[in-house]
Amino acid sequence: MASTRVALLGATGETGTSILNELLKDDKFSIVALIRPSSLQKPSVQAFRQKGIEIRGLDLEAPLQTLVAALKDIDILISAIGPMALLTQIPLATAAKEAGVKRFVPCAFITIAPPDGIMLLRDEKEKVYNHIKKIYLPFTVIDVGWWYQGAFPKLPSGKIDYMTGAGSMNLLCLDGNTPSALTDLRDIGKYVARIIVDDRTVNKYVFTYNEVWTPNQIYDKFEDMSGERPLRKYLSEKEIQDDIISVKQALDANPSDTGSMIMRFIREYQFSWGIRGDNTPEYAKFLGYISSKELYPDLEFRDFGTYLKEVLDGKATPVYASSKDSLTDLVAG
Amino acid sequence: MASTRVALLGATGETGTSILNELLKDDKFSIVALIRPSSLQKPSVQAFRQKGIEIRGLDLEAPLQTLVAALKDIDILISAIGPMALLTQIPLATAAKEAGVKRFVPCAFITIAPPDGIMLLRDEKEKVYNHIKKIYLPFTVIDVGWWYQGAFPKLPSGKIDYMTGAGSMNLLCLDGNTPSALTDLRDIGKYVARIIVDDRTVNKYVFTYNEVWTPNQIYDKFEDMSGERPLRKYLSEKEIQDDIISVKQALDANPSDTGSMIMRFIREYQFSWGIRGDNTPEYAKFLGYISSKELYPDLEFRDFGTYLKEVLDGKATPVYASSKDSLTDLVAG
Repeated sequence: MASTRVALLGATGETGTSILNELLKDDKFSIVALIRPSSLQKPSVQAFRQKGIEIRGLDLEAPLQTLVAALKDIDILISAIGPMALLTQIPLATAAKEAGVKRFVPCAFITIAPPDGIMLLRDEKEKVYNHIKKIYLPFTVIDVGWWYQGAFPKLPSGKIDYMTGAGSMNLLCLDGNTPSALTDLRDIGKYVARIIVDDRTVNKYVFTYNEVWTPNQIYDKFEDMSGERPLRKYLSEKEIQDDIISVKQALDANPSDTGSMIMRFIREYQFSWGIRGDNTPEYAKFLGYISSKELYPDLEFRDFGTYLKEVLDGKATPVYASSKDSLTDLVAG
Repeated sequence: MASTRVALLGATGETGTSILNELLKDDKFSIVALIRPSSLQKPSVQAFRQKGIEIRGLDLEAPLQTLVAALKDIDILISAIGPMALLTQIPLATAAKEAGVKRFVPCAFITIAPPDGIMLLRDEKEKVYNHIKKIYLPFTVIDVGWWYQGAFPKLPSGKIDYMTGAGSMNLLCLDGNTPSALTDLRDIGKYVARIIVDDRTVNKYVFTYNEVWTPNQIYDKFEDMSGERPLRKYLSEKEIQDDIISVKQALDANPSDTGSMIMRFIREYQFSWGIRGDNTPEYAKFLGYISSKELYPDLEFRDFGTYLKEVLDGKATPVYASSKDSLTDLVAG
């Protein structure tokens, strides 16, 4: 059987790494990492070669025909690009159409949220989805919920500061009872490897998630497992809204203020999943998503309780720790 | 069995009339016509009473609680409002959510087209759909293709000027070979009566259409049936684009210029279905629509050939003939 040639954009990011690791386990894929020219010499990129990954330099701002040439032998194009560069996917999609790419998986990989004014991050993605639809390019949108890796509180002893950071605020939205779908970052690639060769997911939105928890359930469980009582600070809707207004004002004054942009993304995430309660399987279904539970009932994912034990045992891997791009990758999903 | 209470907005328009006529044939529906206060005394509205339709005056710009009160006993709300008032559906949807309406069918009822810059009419509707999604209101979007009633050319003898108008230009886009889905306006209500009580269509987009024809196929068929040779004037993409630019300039200068707005709608329709080829079952499927062919294979619709004979026999009914709102209704779909 001929292999399926998959090109991956953002292969060194958190989501990209998860996808890459899982695609590598399956012989049917041959993988091309699309790397910006300025990153070609990075050790993390050079390490790809040892794994049999083809490295292809690509400047996303190159002329269309350069993009087309880079994609001409690609069957499936997956983008896990950072949140600050989402709109570069628009010319990329145009090129993918012209190159005959059979399926484009644009950078979704976030929580479930509706478009149009709730989350800027979601709205930027919507512009890409709308472009894909206008050019009639086969696609799959994959959203993944919130990562396990960012879903537990700091403990008073500091023993898990290696994961949360010492300054973690342990914020819960409203009364802490809003359910939200969680996924182990490492499992995202497993879902993606299934989805991209599944005819049922062509031109569809797919929601992959492992388990649904409320913040209070997580804190209770973690308290029980650790024997420590984490601080709980409850945020009202007004506090979150006021913060969003402030960061928008800061961005109006200085649109290139990356710190404010990241804060905006974080607060809008909290508003969406913590206040509105958007990040649930039920709302995903309402919005037209197919669920991974329905598509892949046999897929073995990591359970959240076991993951929390890994964290307490000092065996979990921090996210954004090794990358100098960490800030801009922070909310890539 | 308790009847299903359906409220209809725009009941005197072309699409509204089709829907009303078909709902009236089914005893399970009790119908409420939502009528703007200034139209309550119109004979066409008064005639509703004789048919057992409840007439309820409603000013769409009323305070939210007034809208909620008007909808509090409604199971299903259908909007066939005109294209100039689409955004009044936003507070209406909010009220429907608060009133506990079980399903909202917003005013779609047009050709298949993607959102975001192709057709202003489609983009206005998208704002309403996005609002519905944000407030988690159960919905069904129903698009219907192009009407039979506007899909055939004027004949040189003038014998069907009663349908086309004497000034009809007989315009075909490009080479006249772009397929487009057609529906008899009178059949729209048949589809709607099925869809609104069908659990498979909750929170879905549905494409209802009768047959797919290219303009050349239509002209050839009509030539064959009539023995007359209709003029064929082919429009290039550039001609349509230039017209769109002109009407946009006219609208920039005078946003309330209804004539230019109508012309914009018409030319953007032509661009979408005639140039881009958007109005097809295949593209609808790509965009996530379920097809009426799949849902209701047994539904008996009128075939286009028979309809053309009606037209030639002088037995067809002109659209927009009786309404003083004709211009604003023209592109309601």
